[in-house]
Amino acid sequence: MTQKPLFFGLYEQANIGDGSGAASLWTHPLDRRLTSTTFDYWLHLARIAEETHLDLFFFGDVLGIYDVYKASAETAISWGVELPAHDPLMHIPFLAAATRNLAFGATISTSYDHPFAHARRLSTLDHLTGGRIAWNIVTSYLPSAARNFGLDAMVRHDDRYEIADEFLDTAYKLWEGSWADDAFIGSKTARRFADPSRVRAIDHRGAHFASAGPHVSHPSPQRTPVLIQAGWSPRGKRLGARHAEIIFAGTTKPEGVRQGMQEIRDLASAEGRDGGEIKALAGVQIVVGKTLIAAREKLEDFQSHYDPNATLAAYAGYSGLDLAKYADDEPLTKVGGHTESAAAQAPVLAGDVRRRYSRVEGNSGLTWIGTASQIADQMQAYVTASGIDGFLLHQFISPGSYEDFAEHVVPELRERGLYRQDAQQGTLRSRIREDGADRLPPSHPAAVHRFRVREG
Amino acid sequence: MTQKPLFFGLYEQANIGDGSGAASLWTHPLDRRLTSTTFDYWLHLARIAEETHLDLFFFGDVLGIYDVYKASAETAISWGVELPAHDPLMHIPFLAAATRNLAFGATISTSYDHPFAHARRLSTLDHLTGGRIAWNIVTSYLPSAARNFGLDAMVRHDDRYEIADEFLDTAYKLWEGSWADDAFIGSKTARRFADPSRVRAIDHRGAHFASAGPHVSHPSPQRTPVLIQAGWSPRGKRLGARHAEIIFAGTTKPEGVRQGMQEIRDLASAEGRDGGEIKALAGVQIVVGKTLIAAREKLEDFQSHYDPNATLAAYAGYSGLDLAKYADDEPLTKVGGHTESAAAQAPVLAGDVRRRYSRVEGNSGLTWIGTASQIADQMQAYVTASGIDGFLLHQFISPGSYEDFAEHVVPELRERGLYRQDAQQGTLRSRIREDGADRLPPSHPAAVHRFRVREG
Repeated sequence: MTQKPLFFGLYEQANIGDGSGAASLWTHPLDRRLTSTTFDYWLHLARIAEETHLDLFFFGDVLGIYDVYKASAETAISWGVELPAHDPLMHIPFLAAATRNLAFGATISTSYDHPFAHARRLSTLDHLTGGRIAWNIVTSYLPSAARNFGLDAMVRHDDRYEIADEFLDTAYKLWEGSWADDAFIGSKTARRFADPSRVRAIDHRGAHFASAGPHVSHPSPQRTPVLIQAGWSPRGKRLGARHAEIIFAGTTKPEGVRQGMQEIRDLASAEGRDGGEIKALAGVQIVVGKTLIAAREKLEDFQSHYDPNATLAAYAGYSGLDLAKYADDEPLTKVGGHTESAAAQAPVLAGDVRRRYSRVEGNSGLTWIGTASQIADQMQAYVTASGIDGFLLHQFISPGSYEDFAEHVVPELRERGLYRQDAQQGTLRSRIREDGADRLPPSHPAAVHRFRVREG
Repeated sequence: MTQKPLFFGLYEQANIGDGSGAASLWTHPLDRRLTSTTFDYWLHLARIAEETHLDLFFFGDVLGIYDVYKASAETAISWGVELPAHDPLMHIPFLAAATRNLAFGATISTSYDHPFAHARRLSTLDHLTGGRIAWNIVTSYLPSAARNFGLDAMVRHDDRYEIADEFLDTAYKLWEGSWADDAFIGSKTARRFADPSRVRAIDHRGAHFASAGPHVSHPSPQRTPVLIQAGWSPRGKRLGARHAEIIFAGTTKPEGVRQGMQEIRDLASAEGRDGGEIKALAGVQIVVGKTLIAAREKLEDFQSHYDPNATLAAYAGYSGLDLAKYADDEPLTKVGGHTESAAAQAPVLAGDVRRRYSRVEGNSGLTWIGTASQIADQMQAYVTASGIDGFLLHQFISPGSYEDFAEHVVPELRERGLYRQDAQQGTLRSRIREDGADRLPPSHPAAVHRFRVREG
């Protein structure tokens, strides 16, 4: 078994309505998402993840209700589409405290927060967790989110990415540039917490943000959390190339993944980074059974609890395309600003999308159904074809779909050397980097803000 | 024992340097605050609190470094005065998950956040904890905090309170006015998460904030968290009178507490609230020994690890008075904007303050030293003289000072009926209200935003 294990994450959102695909499946008798406002629901999932040495427990997020479909929030509220939209950062602390090695990712938008508050939150978490934290950088696609934060309309797509770039640079200054590596002393006998000569203001004044600093936290294990990004638009790819250490691929076609990642890695290398360091993950839904027939029956059982309206409400929100406005034979036209994955696949006819979403597995690009062995085969074939580094698992029903994966698929993947055998320790970054470093490499744009090494 | 138990809280800040008084005592050999960036440090404190049925585990907070003293951050960084200034909201989730009944309070400023993000965070926590959450409303007194959030200078004191008022009203609309009590359905068989006709936008557009809503969380146990306030300035008292359910008294003189609370309660009643509902707490430091002599020796041991410079740096930050600028015989002049507790006690000579802060107990108004019985006597006398409803405990060394209190003082207080015997369940609000209600009463200003009961 010289095969290197793949990277596996679990995708969750702090809501009952899923964020990944089948927004109506909380109605399944075995689904427990209605209890997702309790600690126990989450602790159960995290315990399985910890026991099976999962690489990343990941939270998606939205900051508004999906109200594009039929120009109304009615479907989203009635079905609970990504509702309640609870804050992932209120979940990671208790899951991290209840686990020892599990790492966590949080989706946090750069569009509606101040980088100082954000940097402080993640420094706090990076300290508490010993560096088991990743941040999924998003710019938020929902117009309702913009309105919740008092804007009349959403900032245009590419402008949101300009803001994101400056948000990141401000945060880097706080995380990487405000306290030198040797600033912290923490000595009772020397009666010294830190060396003031090794702490400095950042005095950032940009087009969108200002912050004086110094940062209010001494260097945490990773300083900057592991950076994740999912933009697949031209501007999104540039943001990812500049900042990201992990990319969620924005298409499911293996060749598209390969090309898109090549493009991102080339852009990264052109900026002086090592593009080869950037990992790519694909989202996937899995239905496993003792036989292929049993797995298919399971999927049909999910289908019998599925309602396409909930999915269409979600689709309208993230793509900007309200299918209620189109006849089956009309082509979907791209809308301004907030389409990414949809834009990458357009143009299609409304009827094609409607047909796709008539099925419970329709909203996910990758759905693999079969025995553990068949699923491992598909996974392996996909890795070969796409060059992907790992997968982000989306559940149909929770916690059942993840329990099934852990119980049936993980052993099969382990047999093939595709899933790790042992717990990983240390910071998340040290686990994903070849050189095992806790901190971002000198070639990363965050590094330019660092203190020079003390001279003499 | 017909005596009603007093209300007891523990004051903490997520830092090594205390926030209460003796900012240098982390250097004491028995102090463990240097480990306050770990889960275990906090879990230990919370476990004691849970076992002894403490009423409130409370976090103070600041958003910048104390750099008023000597016009420099040097003392604060060197001594770690309220550093690192870690986010209390990253701590409460894991402490709440590890306890069953303990309630938590977080200090959160209204000056640098958006009410929508804030409302979402606290709704998330109120759901997860079953309503064990309180919010200490502050407007932030540190100029360095304003600069961290990109302002050139701090907003003036009274203007900060105007902003706070609108921040609160916006949050109330989200918490109380966006989802009707019967909006949430959560039925798998009905295939319905919520009733869209019972959820509405808030469309707030004010002088300082705008937010459209609807809120992204269905009604949590308390909806609005229990509201705490500490302002003792005329404008601060008005804010407290309008909103607060618990007030931290801004003076330690029993007669001053009585008068100030009377004033606040009268103001509240004039606004149509029941002023008598507002509880008052006093901050207190306790040193308990088997004998008075042993307690005094303990205090002198603390004194031997104390440095007044750290305290003077903290004092300069919260009062705006930089003692380094004054000779002993000069009177301290009030500075504009951000003095409250200091202003209430001025004018004094610089030398008086310097003398006070030469002692480890100097920064705290109330410090009681003695045997458990002597401390209980002092507590009882203070309650009688001031009319206070309870105490917020500040530690000299952590966790030792709180361990001492729990082990030695609590049993004595219980004997006298002054400390509760049993765990309290249900929401924090239901525990502090005579009527046991989970929600704010109809007379509270938050209530005007509520949905009318469905007719017919």
